Amino acid sequence: MHLKKPTLLLDPSKCRDNILSMNEKVKKKNLIFRPHFKTHQSKAIGKWFAEEGVDKITVSSVEMAQYFANDGWNNILIAFPFNIKEIDEINALAGKIKLLLTVENLEGVKFLKENLKHPVGLYLKIDAGYKRTGIKWNNTEKIKSLLEETESSEHLITEGMLIHSGHTYKADSTQKILQIHHESIERLKYIKSQLDGKWSHLKLSIGDTPGVTLAENFEGVDEIRPGNFIFYDLQQYKSGVCSTENIAVCMACPIVSKHEDRGEIIIYGGAVHFSKEYITEGEQPVYGYGVRISDEGWIPRTSGMLLTKLSQEHGTVSATPDVFSEYEIGDFIGFLPVHSCLTANLMKKYSDFNNNIYDHLSGNL
Amino acid sequence: MHLKKPTLLLDPSKCRDNILSMNEKVKKKNLIFRPHFKTHQSKAIGKWFAEEGVDKITVSSVEMAQYFANDGWNNILIAFPFNIKEIDEINALAGKIKLLLTVENLEGVKFLKENLKHPVGLYLKIDAGYKRTGIKWNNTEKIKSLLEETESSEHLITEGMLIHSGHTYKADSTQKILQIHHESIERLKYIKSQLDGKWSHLKLSIGDTPGVTLAENFEGVDEIRPGNFIFYDLQQYKSGVCSTENIAVCMACPIVSKHEDRGEIIIYGGAVHFSKEYITEGEQPVYGYGVRISDEGWIPRTSGMLLTKLSQEHGTVSATPDVFSEYEIGDFIGFLPVHSCLTANLMKKYSDFNNNIYDHLSGNL
Repeated sequence: MHLKKPTLLLDPSKCRDNILSMNEKVKKKNLIFRPHFKTHQSKAIGKWFAEEGVDKITVSSVEMAQYFANDGWNNILIAFPFNIKEIDEINALAGKIKLLLTVENLEGVKFLKENLKHPVGLYLKIDAGYKRTGIKWNNTEKIKSLLEETESSEHLITEGMLIHSGHTYKADSTQKILQIHHESIERLKYIKSQLDGKWSHLKLSIGDTPGVTLAENFEGVDEIRPGNFIFYDLQQYKSGVCSTENIAVCMACPIVSKHEDRGEIIIYGGAVHFSKEYITEGEQPVYGYGVRISDEGWIPRTSGMLLTKLSQEHGTVSATPDVFSEYEIGDFIGFLPVHSCLTANLMKKYSDFNNNIYDHLSGNL
Repeated sequence: MHLKKPTLLLDPSKCRDNILSMNEKVKKKNLIFRPHFKTHQSKAIGKWFAEEGVDKITVSSVEMAQYFANDGWNNILIAFPFNIKEIDEINALAGKIKLLLTVENLEGVKFLKENLKHPVGLYLKIDAGYKRTGIKWNNTEKIKSLLEETESSEHLITEGMLIHSGHTYKADSTQKILQIHHESIERLKYIKSQLDGKWSHLKLSIGDTPGVTLAENFEGVDEIRPGNFIFYDLQQYKSGVCSTENIAVCMACPIVSKHEDRGEIIIYGGAVHFSKEYITEGEQPVYGYGVRISDEGWIPRTSGMLLTKLSQEHGTVSATPDVFSEYEIGDFIGFLPVHSCLTANLMKKYSDFNNNIYDHLSGNL
């Protein structure tokens, strides 16, 4: 492997293991698997899901839907509140594939009724406690009025109700994650119980990697849409969702300077490569855990080498004396990223240890 | 102007005003102007500098140097510690243009001596107190040894000593910025005073936007390399370096949902558009200040509309009731970004109010 610049390394076997584990749970729990592709945004990685029988996917933008539709995916849910300005692109997509949209307000439903030219599946976005967006889980009246509004529509086909319990990402224990998971499902089931029998076909769909990775109880859930689990990252590790061995991507960066007096190594690798997302260790922001990379893979470290400062292109690594002395200027150090979705988006592609390149949507815009 | 998705708007007249102001200072103080192009990374915007007579530029990566060299720039300083892995690309560039590199260790100088195939200008990177990287300003011995090492080189031409006082970006008052500015210059002048007369040709070069924008005293300085001033941003505004009217870029994002009960507006615009860099207002992280956009420009607001949460594609805007009621789903809101360099890198291009598109290197990788 001949590296020159900051490079996002991918370990295909870790990726495939992550897919297999999740798919096993899906089968065991009799769930529909609609993985979110916003983490990898890669046609090449998408094919590994197809090989496991996955034929329904989730994305978070119209351009992501176009990208995967062009690669043969034809059952795509855009799990993002419908943006009325993109109606032309949505109509074009809906004419080609089975497209599913997310709505959470009457304005959205009415606009779609008037402007759709092809059938589109509809999910209602429910807020089960995350408080980012969606219709509040106990606002039965609003939920009913949205559903009723769809009835007179030629092209809207109600398909389900979805939640994304993103507050599991901020939870400080696995117990807390599971508590949110179960509470959210109970709330979703509650809504459905309040609806007339004619809405019994609505699927209940849940989304977050922390909850679906850790939980065993999915009673009442029809579909899961995790995304981050394909790579995992330090946020997931810190929450107890994965081990460092499960993390399937790593940033490799060349050393450009060493400062022995303060035990700091300067790398070519900054905010434009990693993103500014951080975890904290004590009071210290941390942007990556050092890993030892070889020609065949990497070995995680959990101490002795932390990426503690980032500017646009520089990174500062705090190293213990023994780790410091292992490296010379020009060597590459690897780092497990804090938020793999954002790092992948910035890096625009992946490389494996056989110099294969894997695409990312961001490199194709 | 027909907007559909998150769009980075550029106000060319604000940009040009920022260039003119800085250029006026450069002339008045009799300085060499070597602007840093890492903020805009745009061939189109670069031309506005050329129109003002600028013919020397600074960049922070080899690929940025290649990009601007391909557009006709032929005096380019890479103000980033030399990465030995990119020697082939550096030799190719040095064969075409006047290339200047930054070194800060003996390993770097020795490697260049052995591997350069064409003449290259050399700047020593000095740490005048920022403590990111560079040779410590009072390590006269090391500075002398690096300079002496260059003497037996066929291709290395010593040109200057440079600092980047990045700690001005964290300063909480203009007084503190000026204090750092003057202290850094004194330290740079001190080193030079310690050197033998044969090094009197070395130019003293300083870099940061906060210091060079605010300061009037540049005695002993030969060259300035500010970059961020082309756009400025909320970090600069919060430090007292610019007004909100000077900020030349703004993110326009469509509203996808409104939550009246908590005064929150949800936009299509998240961490993959803005970056996760934030300022704080009280204890609150803030990722952008709302602006009112029209077909001809924007009017900054400094209150009533703050971008307070970001996930991958969603942004949450906290709005006062009067501001909240001004907007409907599908409308666009503008936001002044916290760190314009990172936002531009993510957005990959700019649009002005006449629907002209301006390139960014990131959209060409």
